[in-house]
Amino acid sequence: MNHKVTSESPIGIFDSGIGGLTVVKAIQAALPSERIIYFGDTARVPYGPKSQITIRKYASDDIAILMRYQPKMIIVACNTVSALALDVVEKACGNIPVIGVLKAGAELAVQATKNNRIGVIGTQATVCSNAYACAINQLNPEIQVVSKACPLFVPLAEEGFIDHAATKLIAREYLSEIRDQGIDTLVLGCTHYPILRKVIEETIGHGIRIIDSAEAVAFRTKKLLTESELLNSNLKSCIPHLLVSDLPQKFSLLYQLFMSSELPDVELVEV
Amino acid sequence: MNHKVTSESPIGIFDSGIGGLTVVKAIQAALPSERIIYFGDTARVPYGPKSQITIRKYASDDIAILMRYQPKMIIVACNTVSALALDVVEKACGNIPVIGVLKAGAELAVQATKNNRIGVIGTQATVCSNAYACAINQLNPEIQVVSKACPLFVPLAEEGFIDHAATKLIAREYLSEIRDQGIDTLVLGCTHYPILRKVIEETIGHGIRIIDSAEAVAFRTKKLLTESELLNSNLKSCIPHLLVSDLPQKFSLLYQLFMSSELPDVELVEV
Repeated sequence: MNHKVTSESPIGIFDSGIGGLTVVKAIQAALPSERIIYFGDTARVPYGPKSQITIRKYASDDIAILMRYQPKMIIVACNTVSALALDVVEKACGNIPVIGVLKAGAELAVQATKNNRIGVIGTQATVCSNAYACAINQLNPEIQVVSKACPLFVPLAEEGFIDHAATKLIAREYLSEIRDQGIDTLVLGCTHYPILRKVIEETIGHGIRIIDSAEAVAFRTKKLLTESELLNSNLKSCIPHLLVSDLPQKFSLLYQLFMSSELPDVELVEV
Repeated sequence: MNHKVTSESPIGIFDSGIGGLTVVKAIQAALPSERIIYFGDTARVPYGPKSQITIRKYASDDIAILMRYQPKMIIVACNTVSALALDVVEKACGNIPVIGVLKAGAELAVQATKNNRIGVIGTQATVCSNAYACAINQLNPEIQVVSKACPLFVPLAEEGFIDHAATKLIAREYLSEIRDQGIDTLVLGCTHYPILRKVIEETIGHGIRIIDSAEAVAFRTKKLLTESELLNSNLKSCIPHLLVSDLPQKFSLLYQLFMSSELPDVELVEV
């Protein structure tokens, strides 16, 4: 079933947890007048180490929650869902457009590479799905893609070990393999990874262009809303409407730290 | 509703994921003839960073799955559930006895300490619940308990970073505080932690007695079954019946590594 949208309708964004806030931040920077409704599935985070069947079921629950708010478009801020369940989301959205972080990141990486060698780091599920390589090779079959799963980056980011010696050691272990493959571009294929961007950048070496999919999504969203004449012309900036499936207080605190904002209201919903 | 049990009925064990296999191993060593039915809620792991309400709901689902197999007793191998939802499990079990890792670990620690200073490490939820301190102080109110959450130990163990320099650095950071409090006993308050026992032992210093709750549970289970005359007299050793809510193949591989066994069959159940 499709609902009617106007330029005042919100942009719906979802992720398995807090990681998608990097996307919220990028959208707010590019489109400060847009209303945002965000859902983080904090009761079932993380999605990365789980199976495709389970991830597809969770994606279907997540999109059902956002559709109640009649959004004008949906952003899948979760790389794992973008890789394994984008069709589930698109089907549930009918004629409401959907942008996934994965395709947006892949596009930007293809534009950026000069030597046609791109590295991708992400969760186990995203890397095993091979979805980044597919999306990149659909745009340019000549490009070689080297991928590496970095399962400890999410817990390290969530523990706040941003600049810790242990994080540097782990980054060196994860990244040395792909660094030695002559890539000139590296996609941060998980929305948590921008939090560790400094360590990743230092470890991989400064000659390599880092692609942050959150920025790529914001760019595509602006383009889509402009073309479909759905940009919100209201000039007041809005606080996002935040929904989670568990621990709203913890999410509120993390949001404050993450977005350098006031302590926001966070609503608890059942999945 | 209660079912009839005999000495041949299985022992039901559950955990949020693979961590509870440390308990299965300890039970097999102490009681090789017992039938074991194990459920790991791998679709919703980890429980540690989630709220009490969510953990109680998950515990109720988990026990419902095990009760289908008419066990003669239940072992809650998950410290988080033992801390926050043992009453939920006990209510669902009726007259079937329930042993939680937490109380078993607390008892053994109280017997072990000579200077009445015990350290406890666990997940965020277990430590915040203060349940170990309560259980210990119920047995002896004189004992001082020092606790510390170690959120990265579970992902480090699952990533196989058993003897990694990063694990040592993180262990030093987590454990230095409680080491300086003059404890003589340290409870591994999470079933994953025995996997990192060597690093933990080296970091905390060799003078401190380490309490592995898996061993404590096996000891209590043997006592309970002996007293209630429900020890299985069958002399053949049994392969555990393994159930998970996601990724049975991955669980099977981890089981093989973890238990140094053949690749077992693992059944997928829906939660």
